[in-house]
Amino acid sequence: MIEGHGDDSYLYGNIRMNFSSNIHAHADLSALKSFLAGHLDCIASYPEPSPRRLEALIAADCGLDPSQVLVTAGATEAIYLIAQVFRDRPTFKVFRPTFSEYEDACRIFGYRESDRADLCWLCNPDNPTGRVCDEAFIRTLTGQHRLLVLDQSYEDYTAQPLIHPSLVPAFGNLIQLHSMTKRYAVPGLRLGYVTAASDLVARLRSEMHPWPVNALALQAGEWLLTNRQTVLPDKDLRLAEAVRLRHLLNAIEGIEMGESSTTFMLGTVRPALAAELKDWLAREKGMLIRDASNFQGLTAHHFRIAAQSPEEDDSLVAAVRDFMHR
Amino acid sequence: MIEGHGDDSYLYGNIRMNFSSNIHAHADLSALKSFLAGHLDCIASYPEPSPRRLEALIAADCGLDPSQVLVTAGATEAIYLIAQVFRDRPTFKVFRPTFSEYEDACRIFGYRESDRADLCWLCNPDNPTGRVCDEAFIRTLTGQHRLLVLDQSYEDYTAQPLIHPSLVPAFGNLIQLHSMTKRYAVPGLRLGYVTAASDLVARLRSEMHPWPVNALALQAGEWLLTNRQTVLPDKDLRLAEAVRLRHLLNAIEGIEMGESSTTFMLGTVRPALAAELKDWLAREKGMLIRDASNFQGLTAHHFRIAAQSPEEDDSLVAAVRDFMHR
Repeated sequence: MIEGHGDDSYLYGNIRMNFSSNIHAHADLSALKSFLAGHLDCIASYPEPSPRRLEALIAADCGLDPSQVLVTAGATEAIYLIAQVFRDRPTFKVFRPTFSEYEDACRIFGYRESDRADLCWLCNPDNPTGRVCDEAFIRTLTGQHRLLVLDQSYEDYTAQPLIHPSLVPAFGNLIQLHSMTKRYAVPGLRLGYVTAASDLVARLRSEMHPWPVNALALQAGEWLLTNRQTVLPDKDLRLAEAVRLRHLLNAIEGIEMGESSTTFMLGTVRPALAAELKDWLAREKGMLIRDASNFQGLTAHHFRIAAQSPEEDDSLVAAVRDFMHR
Repeated sequence: MIEGHGDDSYLYGNIRMNFSSNIHAHADLSALKSFLAGHLDCIASYPEPSPRRLEALIAADCGLDPSQVLVTAGATEAIYLIAQVFRDRPTFKVFRPTFSEYEDACRIFGYRESDRADLCWLCNPDNPTGRVCDEAFIRTLTGQHRLLVLDQSYEDYTAQPLIHPSLVPAFGNLIQLHSMTKRYAVPGLRLGYVTAASDLVARLRSEMHPWPVNALALQAGEWLLTNRQTVLPDKDLRLAEAVRLRHLLNAIEGIEMGESSTTFMLGTVRPALAAELKDWLAREKGMLIRDASNFQGLTAHHFRIAAQSPEEDDSLVAAVRDFMHR
């Protein structure tokens, strides 16, 4: 695993505004926290060895059979499990820049990189670019590779059409990743799931260790689904605010923000380095952004931000302008 | 992973007394729960990618360097990680009956069983027998195998001398497992750690995925260590009660309890099967015991129980007597 992911606020003492994580910082978690406060007794008992209750709820919600769902301790655990289970097909492909864990997981299990790889990974929407591929491209990939892993962790952060989980089993060679961490803005809980054809889920399940997920995370997941909770602000408003932020930043000389179909976006700062911008914003303004220079394929000038509230975004724009004129 | 571990109370609705888990059912978790109730905000942020803060606290507590400690999502995650990392030495040895996950993890990564194995696993105190091996035997094993995994998950459930973590790095080929789940009676949280020489910990860390541990579990672990909390009743009292329970059960015709140096113990029921005893106790008495017949090397007559309060233990003895005379 690389050192240096987003949301490294634990390294700083004074962060007032956090643009560094793709996860929206203003989710309303009050009802979830009240629920958890009343269910802390669950720490005293083992959770289910396999989280079948939550899997059944997810399956019902997606129009799948429970055998087509596997709950994991976050999408990241699923990534490592997939690389582990298919290690007898040791070639992989990724589309850079993208989330580093696909490649890290493959390298651990001895995969080599190849354009004609058995195992292809696509982050859609992509992290860090925010780009979304269309269904035709995804169908092409499933035709070219023995197995396609389609990471839809950011499915609640775009308005572009995506592959619905109910369509996944028919592909036969498609494994789809989902992140409750991101949908419900609870990265501290570690909760995600896989949707795929039953035989693929069974193969993954066969190499999974028991009790993968903390009991509080399971309780939270069950409660969120049962009560059809939403915690993020309206998606259209979030996306419109991201467009506004991109335009404001692009108007600053030396800053170039890329196109994005999500609330997060990749940009470059020049002539300064992204690390300098990040350190200055953290130290001088208590604002955290993501230095994206450790994504393979990017440069020391790349940074990533996620739009937050209009007030915070205006503050960020003013702070970046101050940095460029410092 | 096998189906059918202990503490399957989630399968029953009416359990009033739980003897099925080795973990003491009467830990005082009130202070921990109050602490967690006040720290639920941590679900909204990523935990540290690697739990370095907790590792430093554990190291200080054990007299180790932080590089000699690796925190995992329970000892079970550590077992699978060890089998994964040392998969280029594909022979293993276990002493049956013992915790099934060592063998399950090894089989996933293609290990064969061998008396002269590279990787030897010793559960000490052993689950399910409660037996404790002495240091001389452990030293012999480290001389016979390239690597010994010494699972001390139940170190707080015996008065017998064990290998102190501070002595582990000097062995060079010893990996020791610890369970905060068991020490603090919080199996819902999933929290454990490895102690070993730095080079072994570094090898394990190199194949670990980021954010392995839930933020609430990390907060709990840090708080428990910082505040030197104990949650289990006095160990000598718990062990004396276990001896009393064993004697009472042994006086019942058809029941034979084995020797144990811990608060849990293995026994046989005859002519009935352990599954019959378990189902009857659950249905008729709301009492849960562990059908131990799925431990390799045991029979359909084996069950495991852990001593609880004197009142509960007396109720169990009376209920078992009722079963034998039903």
